[in-house]
Order: sequence, then C-alpha cells, then structure tokens
Amino acid sequence: MPRYSARMGLFAEFRCIAGCIGTYPLDAVLYRCPNCGDLLEVEHHLPALREKSADQWKRLFGERWRSVEEPYGSGVWGKHEWVAPHLKVDNIVSMGEGGTHLTRVPKYANEIGLGDVRVKQCGTSHSGSFKDLGMTVLVSMVNQMIKDGKPIRAIACASTGDTSAALAAYAAAAGIRSVVILPRGKISTAQLVQPLAMGSLVLAVDTDFDGCMRIVQELASREGVYLANSMNSLRIEGQKTVAIEIAQQLGWDVPDWVIIPGGNLGNVSALGAGFEMLLALGLIHRRPRICVAQAEHASPLVTAYQRGWAELEPVKAKTTLASAIQIGNPVSFKKAVRALRAFEGVAISVSEAELANASARADRNGLFTCPHTGVALGALEKLAAQKLVTRDQRVVVISTASGLKFADFKVGYHEGKLAEVTSPKYRNVPVELPENYEDVRAALLRGLDTSVM
Amino acid sequence: MPRYSARMGLFAEFRCIAGCIGTYPLDAVLYRCPNCGDLLEVEHHLPALREKSADQWKRLFGERWRSVEEPYGSGVWGKHEWVAPHLKVDNIVSMGEGGTHLTRVPKYANEIGLGDVRVKQCGTSHSGSFKDLGMTVLVSMVNQMIKDGKPIRAIACASTGDTSAALAAYAAAAGIRSVVILPRGKISTAQLVQPLAMGSLVLAVDTDFDGCMRIVQELASREGVYLANSMNSLRIEGQKTVAIEIAQQLGWDVPDWVIIPGGNLGNVSALGAGFEMLLALGLIHRRPRICVAQAEHASPLVTAYQRGWAELEPVKAKTTLASAIQIGNPVSFKKAVRALRAFEGVAISVSEAELANASARADRNGLFTCPHTGVALGALEKLAAQKLVTRDQRVVVISTASGLKFADFKVGYHEGKLAEVTSPKYRNVPVELPENYEDVRAALLRGLDTSVM
Repeated sequence: MPRYSARMGLFAEFRCIAGCIGTYPLDAVLYRCPNCGDLLEVEHHLPALREKSADQWKRLFGERWRSVEEPYGSGVWGKHEWVAPHLKVDNIVSMGEGGTHLTRVPKYANEIGLGDVRVKQCGTSHSGSFKDLGMTVLVSMVNQMIKDGKPIRAIACASTGDTSAALAAYAAAAGIRSVVILPRGKISTAQLVQPLAMGSLVLAVDTDFDGCMRIVQELASREGVYLANSMNSLRIEGQKTVAIEIAQQLGWDVPDWVIIPGGNLGNVSALGAGFEMLLALGLIHRRPRICVAQAEHASPLVTAYQRGWAELEPVKAKTTLASAIQIGNPVSFKKAVRALRAFEGVAISVSEAELANASARADRNGLFTCPHTGVALGALEKLAAQKLVTRDQRVVVISTASGLKFADFKVGYHEGKLAEVTSPKYRNVPVELPENYEDVRAALLRGLDTSVM
Repeated sequence: MPRYSARMGLFAEFRCIAGCIGTYPLDAVLYRCPNCGDLLEVEHHLPALREKSADQWKRLFGERWRSVEEPYGSGVWGKHEWVAPHLKVDNIVSMGEGGTHLTRVPKYANEIGLGDVRVKQCGTSHSGSFKDLGMTVLVSMVNQMIKDGKPIRAIACASTGDTSAALAAYAAAAGIRSVVILPRGKISTAQLVQPLAMGSLVLAVDTDFDGCMRIVQELASREGVYLANSMNSLRIEGQKTVAIEIAQQLGWDVPDWVIIPGGNLGNVSALGAGFEMLLALGLIHRRPRICVAQAEHASPLVTAYQRGWAELEPVKAKTTLASAIQIGNPVSFKKAVRALRAFEGVAISVSEAELANASARADRNGLFTCPHTGVALGALEKLAAQKLVTRDQRVVVISTASGLKFADFKVGYHEGKLAEVTSPKYRNVPVELPENYEDVRAALLRGLDTSVM
C-alpha cells in the first residue's frame, strides 16, 4: 500500500529493479525483492510531484538551500518531497548534512590542461564522508517506524568504515542503538574509533566478513535488528541529493562531466537517480557524462565497460590505498550500469601511484583529499590526457570523504614510505636548518624560487 | 588614510587597543601599534554601516546565508561589509568557510541537567577548524596587497597546528607561498601533514619556539614575508562571524550563554567583537554571558578571573590533551578581558580527566568532539552543577575543530591508555565472540539491555 503524505498526495515506494510486479511501502522491513531477490529501488510518484512546476521547485529549493530553518537547511531535507515524502518532519534526524561547497580549483585545472574543474566537498560533513547523506534518511525512517510501533531494537551494519561512522552518529543522535559486527582481530581500534566513541555496540566475531554478513542477516530476520547495509535503497535517496545540489550550485545547469570514485557503486547509482529526477521534473534539460573511477586493484566495473558493459565478473579485490572502494563484487552493479548507459558513461582505473600522486597534486592546490578522491582525480587526468575531457568543458569531481580520515596515507606519501608509490612526484619534506638567520634566509629564498605552485 | 570602498563609503582601519592616537589602513604591513607596541584592532566606521537599518542588514544576511552565489555563500563573506569592506570581491580567497551547523543535543543537555544546548560546529570546515574563518580574511587581504603591488613574497607562521593547516590551504588556493617555521626535531610529520601536503615551505630550525619567533619576525621585517601570527587582527574579523551566525541561526536572538575554549584568547575576543557589532547596529538587543573554558594545565585567564580580572600572570603551561590551548602567556589577554567584563563573563578550568570524559559523553550523543570542545563541555557541566546555568536557559557551545584531527586521543581513551584518565567513564570496547549465532545473539541482547544511551 503506498503511503500518502498529508500534503500534495506525494508518495514513494520500493520496487524491484528487475521489473517484478508489486510495490512495497518504505517502512516495510525489506532489503531485496521478495520475489526474485534482486535489488529494490525507491520509485517516486512523479505526477504528484509535477503539480509544482520546475520553476516552483527551483524557487522552493532556493529558499531552503542551507537556510537556518530546521531541518530544511540540510541539503537532504531541503529536498524532502523528492527524498522521502512520507517522513514526518518531527521524525527527521539531521546533523546539517549536505549543502557542501563546490570548490573551484583553477590552478589545478590549468596544470592538467583543463579550464573549469570544481570539487564537490562531500567529506566536509558531520561524520566526515558522503555517507551522512544516506544515513540521515535511513535513521529517520527507522525512527519513524519505531514511533509507529514497529519492533525495531537496533540498526546494524557490517562495515568498518565510513558507513559505521555515519550510522553511529545518526543513531546516537536519535537515541537508537547501533550495532557494528565485524571479523575479530582484523580491525584496529583506530579503524573503529568513530563508532566506538559514538556508542555503537561493537561485536567482534571469530569469522570472516561473509560470516559476519550471515550472522547480521539472521539477527535482522529474527531479533528486530534493522540492516543499514549497502543493499538498503533508502540511503540512495539521500545520496542522490548530491546531483541535485550540483545542478543548483551551477544555477540549475549541469556540468559536462561528473567524475566519481566507485566501489560498491551505490553512489554512482544515486548520482544517476538524482539527475534522472531533475530531468523528469524539468529542472534540467541535458545530461552530464559520468565517469566512474576505480582503483586498478578493484576494478570489475572497468572490465565490464571495456567489454561493452558486459555482465559483472566478480574479482577478488587486491589491497588498495583507496580502502573504501576495495570491492570485487559490487552490490549495485546493475543499477550503476543502467545509469552509466543513460549518461554516456565511462569507467577508468588508476594505479596506486597514480591515485596517490593525483591526490597530492590536488593538495598542493589547497585541497586535502582522501585517496578515493585521488582515484577520481587520477581518472580525470587520464580523460584530459586522452582529450576526452577538454579545456572548454566544465567538470565536477565528487570528493567522498575528509582527508583527515587518511592522515597516515598522507604521512606515508610525504615520508616516502608508501610501498605502492616508489617515487612520489609531489613529496614535500621539512628543510632542516641550524639556528642562524642567514642560513634560514637563504633556505627561504631558495624555497621561494623553486616554486611548487 | 582610511580606504573608502566604492559603495556606501564603508571603511575599516587598524587602531591601537591601548588608545594611542592614530589609525592605519588594513593593508599596512603592521602587527602591533607602532607607538606603544600593544595590540591593534580593526575599527569599523559605524555611521556608514548605519545607513542600512538593522532590518535591512538582517534581510541582506538572510539572502546571502550559504547561498550558491560566490563568495557570499561563505559565512564570512556573506558579512563582507562588516568584515573587510575595502576588500574587492575579485581578491577574495574562499573555500566555503562558515555557515556551520548549530546542532541541537537534547539528550546530552538532559544528561547534564540542562534544557537547550546547541553546538556550533566550527570544525566542519575546509581545513577542519575555526581557523579557516580568520585565514580567509588574512589571505584575501594579502592577495589584494600583492595585486596592488606590495612586495610580499610569502605568508609565514610559527604554528604547528590548525593555524598552519588553514594558512597552507588558503595560500595554496591563492597561489601565494606559505612558510611554516618551527623547532627542529620536536614536531612529527603527522603533526605537520596538512601544511606539508598543501605545499608549505617548512623550515625546521635548530632552536626553540621563541627562537623561531625571532627569526620569523626578522624575515617579516626584511624579506617581504607577511606574518599570519596570533597578533594579526585581520583574523579576528573573520572569526567574529561566529557570533553573527549564532544570532542569525537563532532568528536574530542570542543564547543566554556561550561557552568557548580559550588559549591565546583571540577567539573569545572575536566572539565579543561580533556581539558588540550586532548590538551597535541594532540586530540584537541583549548580551549573552560568555564562559571561557581552559585546561587546568594552562589556565592563566582563570587565575586572573578568580582575582577579579587581575593583571595577567604568565605561567608555564603544562602538557594537556587540549594541545591547541596549551598556552601560558596568551597574546590576546587584554582584548579577552575587555570582552569578558562586558559580557558578564566567567572563566572555568577543567582537569584532563574532566575534559576527556566530557568529550566522550558528548560523542555518545552523536558528536565526535575534539579535546578543546571537551574543555568547553567540561566547563558547561560545572556551570550546570553549580546552577549558574539552568534548565530554562539556552546555551551554545563553540566546537573549535574536527574530532578527526584527534583520532589518537579517542583511541587512547577507549583503549584505556591515556595516562591522564585513569578511569575513563564512557569507555567503549568491542565484545569478542566465537562464531556461533547463539553467542552473538546473547551478546547483542545483553548489549541492548545495558543501554549506554
């Protein structure tokens, strides 16, 4: 049964991406199609949304853009009707996510032969990554389900990274318990410091990652534990606001290219969903091209692309500095390929040295990029070298997390100690000097002459 | 000579805080009063600002609040006329600083016996701290000075912390060289990773911190190096926008209390300056009370307060987890006391264990606080216990930096390895379990029952 919101008759519901008959309410505890087991997606009732014109939506979104009015100042909840219209405002759990800066990097653009490159700073966010955008939707939905009397006791995930950090933050703010289940002995306190600090119940089980997944799914089916895993389509609804924000920040236009790093591929699916909705409701009139950037060590999408968007062949991902996208069997592969076909997409992989050098080059221009953003920038450099992206085009690069989460990566690079990067191109080290004004002065003048800028 | 801006005859200039006769243009290379050596402050020409009514300013600031129009979407540059009216928009170097979330923490407030506590998240910013707010002004000003032909070759500081990170970011974005001068052998790559990555020329000199300061001042006077030190009053102009934003986010009202951590005391001076300007121009009609929170190990302001705002007695600061405020001889003492007298201020110190526990308690409610924010929260807990702050009052706590900069502090706390905190009250550790569904289930149910929330 579709749930109608009080105003405007807006609603959205789950539907199977393989086309199975049937829709399901968003507050059903459901992660896959009960018929075929494929992924679900959230389908919005577009005719109701069309009761407002494109200009009316633009005006409404403009008024709300990072306004001081809660929760509409949030980049996600400013788009409430497009994200989760059935969610009551009182149930929304927001930490001011979204509305991140679209930073121009003219010097970097020029260095790589391009004209207009901007970086969407999704990592400048409450828990330090774009995962906040999806988690505010998921936790708000669960908050509403609990208030409606559903027997949900906790929200769980099997992630050790940004997902668990975002889950811990939003669940703690809502007063809902979060549970992180992971393989014992393989994860350090440092990797878990955000969920531990934010009060997650962390269960370290003597098994591998697949064993954790089996247990967490059993807990979900029997113990009233809701899953915040990467199959959960509610998160996509929050993440798609990145596309809407980019268009809004460009005066309701789109860039020629969007470059996004990809692992499980939920994020590119979300990007595609956002642009599709903008097109369907008339707020934009053309499509950007999309490039998914992968680390060579975990690039099944690139393989599929090179074979003409062939079927997925799962691989065993090798260790990569871009740890959050070290995934050989991406959950959202089908959704991603559908989006990439529609957006004239490409998929490009970069080596460990390429991603580290691209990240360091961007840093020298005033960013402080995570390695995944380095993957996207490395791919952009290749597109520029191949003249697939040209100086007259506008490019937006999605930066997915705060560089502060990856201080060890930066230290290793500048100390020259990353095994993956034998000759770091943009290494910067302190100049050691005696206490003598003339020596310091000489070093200063030398340093200013050998400009890195 | 005051510089008049093209529109409205707005201007601002440096003036000595001790009352010496004379004013100086903001693009003079000047850090202290040339007459008496005391601090300078920026004085704005209020009659010209009064040509707009309070309501007109509110409307203008409302329209600009985090708008997509550059650079006015910046929290600092949305207040351009109040910050640095003589700066041409083309010379502004902005990374979308300010406009940070004012996060409600109702569960935390209730735990400590209060009703309405909000946290101003200044650390959710480009370089991860409130220093971005001042640095965008300083670097923009230097950018304009260089374009006007002043012989400035670089901007230097002697900081190893947030100041050098912010300087490196904004200077790199502007294409101006940044220089960090510091004692050799005392600073690790990790402490310097942001300025190194962002291309600062780092000079490690075989001397102590005072020796570095002497050298950097000599370079400034002889080699065209501009100082980004804590005496530089331009930074205060950016930082004061925190006060303006708080009022704006509260619908042009003020909280009853603002709690701010203090070391060099520039930040509380800035907060006072912001509220004074709001009062002078009629946008607010009352003053909040201000509490400066210090670590016991570095609390000369608290000593002065306890003696009825006596003269500063510099101390040798002891090591504290709140490393950025480990300062025994605060540069901005006089400005701070002036503000605290005007705002019925108090100064409170907290022990290492108190700051760590307060930080951890806030984290359990969905924040991820830096130790300096822990100092402010620890002070708030004391004010609440003393009934100086009561449940019917509204409190804003200034969070100064991202917790992600202090992951080691968090790890140490939850591993129980901080020497300063013998029994961490809110310690959270993983539960280790065999691969057995029933064991995991039992641990889950136990964990959910012993609620931390």
